Amino acid sequence: MSSIPPFDVTDAQVRAAVAAFGSPLYVYDEATLRARARAVASFGGPFGFTPRFAVKANPSRGVLRLFHDEGLHFDASTVFEAQRVIAAGLPAASVQITAQILVDGFADLARDGVRLTACSLRQLEQIGAALPGTEIGVRINPGEGTGHNNRTNVAGPDASFGIWHEHLAEAQAIASRHRLRIRWLHHHVGSGGDPHKWAVIAAVTLGFLAIFPDADRVNLGGGFKVGRMPGETESDLEQAACEAHALLREIAADSGRELHLEIEPGSWLTALAGVIVGTAHDVVSTGSDGHTFVRSDVGLSEILRPSMYGAQHPMRFVAATPSRALGEPEPLLIVGPCCESGDLLTPADGDPEALAPRRLARPRAGDLLVVGAAGAYCAAMAARNYNSIPVAPELLLSERGEFVELRRRQCLDDVLRDEC
Amino acid sequence: MSSIPPFDVTDAQVRAAVAAFGSPLYVYDEATLRARARAVASFGGPFGFTPRFAVKANPSRGVLRLFHDEGLHFDASTVFEAQRVIAAGLPAASVQITAQILVDGFADLARDGVRLTACSLRQLEQIGAALPGTEIGVRINPGEGTGHNNRTNVAGPDASFGIWHEHLAEAQAIASRHRLRIRWLHHHVGSGGDPHKWAVIAAVTLGFLAIFPDADRVNLGGGFKVGRMPGETESDLEQAACEAHALLREIAADSGRELHLEIEPGSWLTALAGVIVGTAHDVVSTGSDGHTFVRSDVGLSEILRPSMYGAQHPMRFVAATPSRALGEPEPLLIVGPCCESGDLLTPADGDPEALAPRRLARPRAGDLLVVGAAGAYCAAMAARNYNSIPVAPELLLSERGEFVELRRRQCLDDVLRDEC
Repeated sequence: MSSIPPFDVTDAQVRAAVAAFGSPLYVYDEATLRARARAVASFGGPFGFTPRFAVKANPSRGVLRLFHDEGLHFDASTVFEAQRVIAAGLPAASVQITAQILVDGFADLARDGVRLTACSLRQLEQIGAALPGTEIGVRINPGEGTGHNNRTNVAGPDASFGIWHEHLAEAQAIASRHRLRIRWLHHHVGSGGDPHKWAVIAAVTLGFLAIFPDADRVNLGGGFKVGRMPGETESDLEQAACEAHALLREIAADSGRELHLEIEPGSWLTALAGVIVGTAHDVVSTGSDGHTFVRSDVGLSEILRPSMYGAQHPMRFVAATPSRALGEPEPLLIVGPCCESGDLLTPADGDPEALAPRRLARPRAGDLLVVGAAGAYCAAMAARNYNSIPVAPELLLSERGEFVELRRRQCLDDVLRDEC
Repeated sequence: MSSIPPFDVTDAQVRAAVAAFGSPLYVYDEATLRARARAVASFGGPFGFTPRFAVKANPSRGVLRLFHDEGLHFDASTVFEAQRVIAAGLPAASVQITAQILVDGFADLARDGVRLTACSLRQLEQIGAALPGTEIGVRINPGEGTGHNNRTNVAGPDASFGIWHEHLAEAQAIASRHRLRIRWLHHHVGSGGDPHKWAVIAAVTLGFLAIFPDADRVNLGGGFKVGRMPGETESDLEQAACEAHALLREIAADSGRELHLEIEPGSWLTALAGVIVGTAHDVVSTGSDGHTFVRSDVGLSEILRPSMYGAQHPMRFVAATPSRALGEPEPLLIVGPCCESGDLLTPADGDPEALAPRRLARPRAGDLLVVGAAGAYCAAMAARNYNSIPVAPELLLSERGEFVELRRRQCLDDVLRDEC
């Protein structure tokens, strides 16, 4: 498949964004978001296809509207996310809730057209009691996943998501008791990179079809890997589609059941479409046997993934002005603005407790920082307001090359607003 | 020293709080906060003493005012925290800024009476340029700390905090050039539990006194351990005070310099004064070789420490009504509401990637959850609004036994407020 290049800002755009909107800030690229949405929309299915966006990756209203415009539907991981999509002016019927817990409000949403995927036996009871006779789905834990620890497992005995495969007959019995019709099976396969393995696990899920006579739709979740760092390979969506289509055709041939397909990527749609732009405020040394640290205004208050998971993001500095040059490349550690030892943008890969100096052109105070591959789980999942730092703004770089503010920068009053 | 027992809510209070304010929520205990503030205030010093609260641990206005009332001053880790203390109506002169980066606004704060501790050579230049002639402090990295990885190191070659000890003469030279008078040395010794080791490292810092002829004050930071889990020992503040006093008397005898002492605990003042109350929404099983998971509405959106650091917090369930009993104790894993594998309240100690089932009385859906030792770095440092979950309210349990709302619960409109 023709791969979509990761978005990067030009040096001039970095300077212009900070000059106009301050530092730090998030920038998403409209062209990249649209290209990725189109790639997902073209995944297709032999018996019908619905592409969804996993809202939690980037729930910004501007991003939601853009994806709706490209024909994507939505998967909400909480009742709140579903309400958020609707508050953005998008149709309730384009939203499905697949949540760990179903809090108050789910029934009203369902009556407005939101689809519910039950993720536990109790959720079947909740939905059955509130909405008898409804058409719903079930999320299945098929007993195996692609992860290797609790941070990456979304299926298997160590994962809390979905209904354990040994309990599916009971699930169908509860549904029957409440006259719920289980119309779709949902299995988020997980963030592996191998399309063949993805298809093998998808096949396991589809093995449970016999339990659910009313199911004519299958949602295989997301789990498409993105290559954040150079050398990382991205999931080949076209190959995954081929595997999935073959599987669905095989099922149709064997059982006569023609299944409508859904997928719901999050990272794949947005991760490589965004960057964080910040400022290098200081460069400090801990001596000849120590390190050189760049202190920036981007940290766990803006991006939690390195501190929490040892996630790797591309980073580079940009000279504050075109006439000023960066220093020679040298091993640098980049830390955030928080008074917290774990506020480190350059941990070792997968090991947030270890330092991994990165060879980068040395900045001076006032030079700018670009953190790449920051369009998913960055603005959405950060230690917001830690150290009382106001939340940074989110910008969309439009296809016309203009910055459109999707969310404005908080001021201190915003941080304090809910205090009594 | 007579230890102050950790705050715990009664079952009746848990039920009453949720009935009145919903779930989840934070509760802080006025009596415990005051008792701890008094213990810190009585630390004392042979030549004067100023106790400070490290604001970042719990910057709630109600907590700040209560500590002011008990005579505590404040250490702000950002310009924003200093502004927040002042916005709470508290005196600028009670605030000191000790920050990784000095953003716009620091000079105005200093002119209003806020004290500045320079944490790098560049900060000395910044302060010198904006406020020549000012009296300031310097934060020192003395070359050794108490931590064993980047998560716990606040000093030593792997830490970015403060001015490296080999650069202190240069620091004094920059100060002299700008006619800055360096009146205090600051060294946050770190969160070790051994008062003797604390004093030994403090002595290293004080060895640098000779470089700073104007210094007549020393701030030894926080670094007093709290015992969150049963069996963990808490720092003995009285013993630490004895060690510090002896050290200061020794310095006075040797050099004639009588140093005013400051300390600035964060966790020690608030961690054991707060709990999070939530609800068990579901109990799901992954089969006979798997686990039993309790899905709660408390997770990394409310408390990040377990997911980020593998931090251990005491937890228990409370039956929804007095007439209903919890089940027998069994090994349980507790997960949060987020669609995120790492949203786990029961990781292994220090290892957020491993599951550590905990033997607890089994709840049913609707029973309540109490997460203890949650008064520090919980409401302050959480993945706020992840999965679009509104921020939970903070309550103070007054000495009269009443719940006072310090921060109200967000609604979805609050989550969306800053969108354009």
